[in-house]
Amino acid sequence: MSNRLAHSFDKSKLEAVCLRRFFFAPAFEIYGGCAGLYDYGPPGSALQANILDAWRKHFIIEEEMLEVDTTAVTLGEVLKTSGHVDKFTDWMCRDTKTGDIFRADHLVEAVLEARLKGDKEARGEQQIEQPKEDEKKKKKKVKSSAVKLDDAVVQQYETILAQIDNFDGEELADLIEKHSIKSPESQNDLTKPVEFNLMFESSIGPTGQVKGYLRPETAQGHFVNFGRLLEFNNGRVPFASAQIGKSFRNEISPKQGLLRVREFLMAEIEHYVDPLKKNHPRFNEVENVQLQILPNEVQVEGKTDLTKITVGEAVKKGIIDNETLGYFVARINLFLEKIGINKDRLRFRQHMSNEMAHYASDCWDAEIHTSYGWIECVGCADRSAYDLTVHAVRTGQPLVVREPLPEIKIEEKWAPEINKKKFGPTFRANQKIVESTIFALDQPRLECIKKDFDSQGKSDIQAADGNKYDLTPELLTIEKKTFKETKREFTPNVIEPSFGIGRILYALLEHSFYAREQDEGRTVLGFPPLVAPIKALVVPISNSKEFEPIIKDISLRLRKNGVASRVDDSSATIGKRYARNDELGTPYGITVDFATVKKNTITLRERDTTEQKIGTVEQVVDAIVKLSKGEIEWPQVDLPAYSGVQDAD
Amino acid sequence: MSNRLAHSFDKSKLEAVCLRRFFFAPAFEIYGGCAGLYDYGPPGSALQANILDAWRKHFIIEEEMLEVDTTAVTLGEVLKTSGHVDKFTDWMCRDTKTGDIFRADHLVEAVLEARLKGDKEARGEQQIEQPKEDEKKKKKKVKSSAVKLDDAVVQQYETILAQIDNFDGEELADLIEKHSIKSPESQNDLTKPVEFNLMFESSIGPTGQVKGYLRPETAQGHFVNFGRLLEFNNGRVPFASAQIGKSFRNEISPKQGLLRVREFLMAEIEHYVDPLKKNHPRFNEVENVQLQILPNEVQVEGKTDLTKITVGEAVKKGIIDNETLGYFVARINLFLEKIGINKDRLRFRQHMSNEMAHYASDCWDAEIHTSYGWIECVGCADRSAYDLTVHAVRTGQPLVVREPLPEIKIEEKWAPEINKKKFGPTFRANQKIVESTIFALDQPRLECIKKDFDSQGKSDIQAADGNKYDLTPELLTIEKKTFKETKREFTPNVIEPSFGIGRILYALLEHSFYAREQDEGRTVLGFPPLVAPIKALVVPISNSKEFEPIIKDISLRLRKNGVASRVDDSSATIGKRYARNDELGTPYGITVDFATVKKNTITLRERDTTEQKIGTVEQVVDAIVKLSKGEIEWPQVDLPAYSGVQDAD
Repeated sequence: MSNRLAHSFDKSKLEAVCLRRFFFAPAFEIYGGCAGLYDYGPPGSALQANILDAWRKHFIIEEEMLEVDTTAVTLGEVLKTSGHVDKFTDWMCRDTKTGDIFRADHLVEAVLEARLKGDKEARGEQQIEQPKEDEKKKKKKVKSSAVKLDDAVVQQYETILAQIDNFDGEELADLIEKHSIKSPESQNDLTKPVEFNLMFESSIGPTGQVKGYLRPETAQGHFVNFGRLLEFNNGRVPFASAQIGKSFRNEISPKQGLLRVREFLMAEIEHYVDPLKKNHPRFNEVENVQLQILPNEVQVEGKTDLTKITVGEAVKKGIIDNETLGYFVARINLFLEKIGINKDRLRFRQHMSNEMAHYASDCWDAEIHTSYGWIECVGCADRSAYDLTVHAVRTGQPLVVREPLPEIKIEEKWAPEINKKKFGPTFRANQKIVESTIFALDQPRLECIKKDFDSQGKSDIQAADGNKYDLTPELLTIEKKTFKETKREFTPNVIEPSFGIGRILYALLEHSFYAREQDEGRTVLGFPPLVAPIKALVVPISNSKEFEPIIKDISLRLRKNGVASRVDDSSATIGKRYARNDELGTPYGITVDFATVKKNTITLRERDTTEQKIGTVEQVVDAIVKLSKGEIEWPQVDLPAYSGVQDAD
Repeated sequence: MSNRLAHSFDKSKLEAVCLRRFFFAPAFEIYGGCAGLYDYGPPGSALQANILDAWRKHFIIEEEMLEVDTTAVTLGEVLKTSGHVDKFTDWMCRDTKTGDIFRADHLVEAVLEARLKGDKEARGEQQIEQPKEDEKKKKKKVKSSAVKLDDAVVQQYETILAQIDNFDGEELADLIEKHSIKSPESQNDLTKPVEFNLMFESSIGPTGQVKGYLRPETAQGHFVNFGRLLEFNNGRVPFASAQIGKSFRNEISPKQGLLRVREFLMAEIEHYVDPLKKNHPRFNEVENVQLQILPNEVQVEGKTDLTKITVGEAVKKGIIDNETLGYFVARINLFLEKIGINKDRLRFRQHMSNEMAHYASDCWDAEIHTSYGWIECVGCADRSAYDLTVHAVRTGQPLVVREPLPEIKIEEKWAPEINKKKFGPTFRANQKIVESTIFALDQPRLECIKKDFDSQGKSDIQAADGNKYDLTPELLTIEKKTFKETKREFTPNVIEPSFGIGRILYALLEHSFYAREQDEGRTVLGFPPLVAPIKALVVPISNSKEFEPIIKDISLRLRKNGVASRVDDSSATIGKRYARNDELGTPYGITVDFATVKKNTITLRERDTTEQKIGTVEQVVDAIVKLSKGEIEWPQVDLPAYSGVQDAD
């Protein structure tokens, strides 16, 4: 194996390779580009396709998940119910004179960090380049100047920075005022932060009346189809749906290349499970998987020390809540390692309670370390019954599982009964939502309303639309009734592993990139064969016509075996052609020369070691097929080593 | 083979199967749905994935195309240049009282057709249900009543209907007035037709200043990246880029299920070719492919007779313009047949000059016959140099190929030279666009301006922004200069095969659907194994624990060979389980019974013949793998036939 650490990582070199080889480039580049939008060129597309193929096999096929493909254009009502219309926002403020727009939390962070840096300079402390601990840091470059601060102020700034993700608009406004934060370049005043919804909005159809959004996640498309999916699965849980598709977020100020973009590919799994049975039948297969974790309580202490632990232990100790969540954490870990993520630079960080999404009850992020710090690449959340419940209440559709009980259960229960004659005229257009809210109430709440009726002759409820409605005994009665239950009815909980494919792809580029020990200028993308865009490069030693049928034959053999290959018959030297393909991450190279014509032998080069072996066309093709499928590794290729030029005789 | 024609096609039954088995369903169904948006469930997603996989192998891998993945969110400027902002519109009108919206051409068509139908009824002519000849017919259901028309009026209506695709807004307004066309249900007056742009519009970023659209085709994403793609291909043409991705059209009134939707998957190829060399090196491989074609001149005569002809002949006779276009027409034909489209219900129709898209110079649509008539499923257009030219002019980027000339060419040419001191201050913000327009002018136009200067002291040009700009000899000079040319520079032409995957998928559903000869209630989707969502169903004869390891083993063997399989261990009878899978289109079924435990034998059932064969686990798995890959067909499975229940002893 080559020494990948001989030279330190140089981001500018990687960026140059990505552009030069067209892994990706700014979208509409000839029009000056558009922040947060990127196009993938041929090697980037192939790398992405191979990551997705590995993902599909590792998750969908291995676990017989139900794949769906739902629309990106989403009815406004659906995202209103899910909470995205109201809550999927960031705070932004403007320069009062230039109109420049900033994401408020990023700006406060950048300004305070710059001041702390200036303070250190003023104190003559050496500036140690801090490893960037968080992707969210350093959004907007703010220049520092050497100004000493009071010790108390330093302390205050540090406290603010540690909590920067927690502030709402009011609090950010206070911080901006209290700490005299100005527009960084102009030093003008800033407006008060206002909420900006991150969804792209549009209108469906010609009337202008039907609001639509581009989905910010694929998940809602799964949930609204839950009924059909459950039926497809013969009414039984657990099962999972899976979807690979684009999502969209209209970021205020996207930066950091592929890490924060406005359109991105996601691969999302929604695993539906009985809330009382969160064990997992295949947990034993993964319990020995080693993780690096950063639990909630460590972070609360302000620390970031990682713990090495097996999934089995983590679940046993209650650090990870349940087997199903632990199972997916382990499977995510295995997947990321398989495609080439460095396991030492991978951690699972538990969300702190204040940063959790509005729907989640527990969440572990797979974070990958890059030159931008630790980046969230996969979220693994327990969304509880949140989504299915809100959609069920809103639509009146029962998104529940009905399971036969082992024996019939007879129970006394509070049961509401509606007086339709009064109910309809009273609530008019809201009749349906009030009714479905009433029927979704649990026993204690029903009993409470009954008591209200008896004592005060009225009560009220808050319906799913957020409004309060008054209830009276004339509108509905609540009485104890006897129920014979043959079935248990429950809303499944959802465990959601959600992959940001673009972020994973970028992290993989960083982890794969190195320069040859003997020549810093010769850079390589050392992808595992599984995901390499092209598995084999075929290079004829010259443009001789004699080689054409041989090359055609080799290409055809590889293609038949599903191995992507390319021929490079340009006039560059073989060394240059290999160098080009090192940058494309092509793991194997075949050289065809005059000996091939006479003896049917070709040489096989491995990218990372640059070792060469020699064999017949059949032997070499067979070796490449096995290498590409991961059946063998390079040292196991049982062919004689080779150095120098083949002898044609 | 079973007799698929025993019962006539029943669309309502197919629709029921598609919903019941969740091939697809209206998106946001629990919210009442949203016209023109559909979600694919597990079998629909798998069918789509298999069609795409076949497509990728047939086109991208076979021809080493450069795959790209570009953004759906598109900068407004790009689509302004491509012409979509101005021209990608339909005409719509409103009911003046109810506000109901209609697509004007569809409405005129539907009303006149209803009147013609009423006329026939009034004349007592028998109503023969016409085979619907065109997908665009019958958009809006309009009731007919038996009213006799004058013969002249009938003639007039028929002429209008034959030309219905050609009218602009003015003309549609005239027709509506002249023929007293009213809102079909209310009989209210209609507003004058106005243009409605079919693109979903949104705003990129928080400023509200940057207009964006969802792309209506993936093609522009290829074109704006042409420079990088050409470089990736070492500066040489021909080559092709390919992309699979979602596109979006905000249809006025989407109907017909998957055939006219607002969000759809496309697979598009842009093949860049030297305009002087439209021959194709692999044309000989396809010249004998048989086509059914409907050329332009046949349609002009008002006929729809199909001609059977080979691609070779069609190109030779000049019916299809050139080899490259012919090559793709043939490859499209082969692809559609491969995935299961009935070749007798497939035709290539040439566009008439008046219906061609604004960018196309010649176009052949692959149309597939369905119960809705002939449906355009693949367009194969020669877009000439239109797109690359307009983007080059607009951005000032040279989207050209430079090819070394065999010998140096010395030429006198008119050359413009700009007087920067005057030019900048005169044109200010428009300087760049005027300049790039001038440098894109051809020789005759330059000479003409030179003459204007000499005679009148001024001239003018129309720039790419559509505006006129005055030119004077003070702003620029035009003189003859000697050029030594070592390279030929040209803008490649683009041949574009563009696939509507959803339409193909729907047509395939119709072509695959049949009812068993002996029982009309038992419906089957007879997909070819290549695209069938699941290749093999594994059914244990009972819930016996003994079967579990065997089933696990069979599943694992199939999965290892990349064959998608499912186990159905529900308590339904084997017959019912097979019936369910017939509706899912699963071609092979394996039954595990007590003989399997003792003798390691399982039975293999073929869906269409319902024949069964028997063999060991290894033999049957081996047969399924070969059948799924298309290496053998059912009659070639060399295992003994079997009927009845296995003897366990």
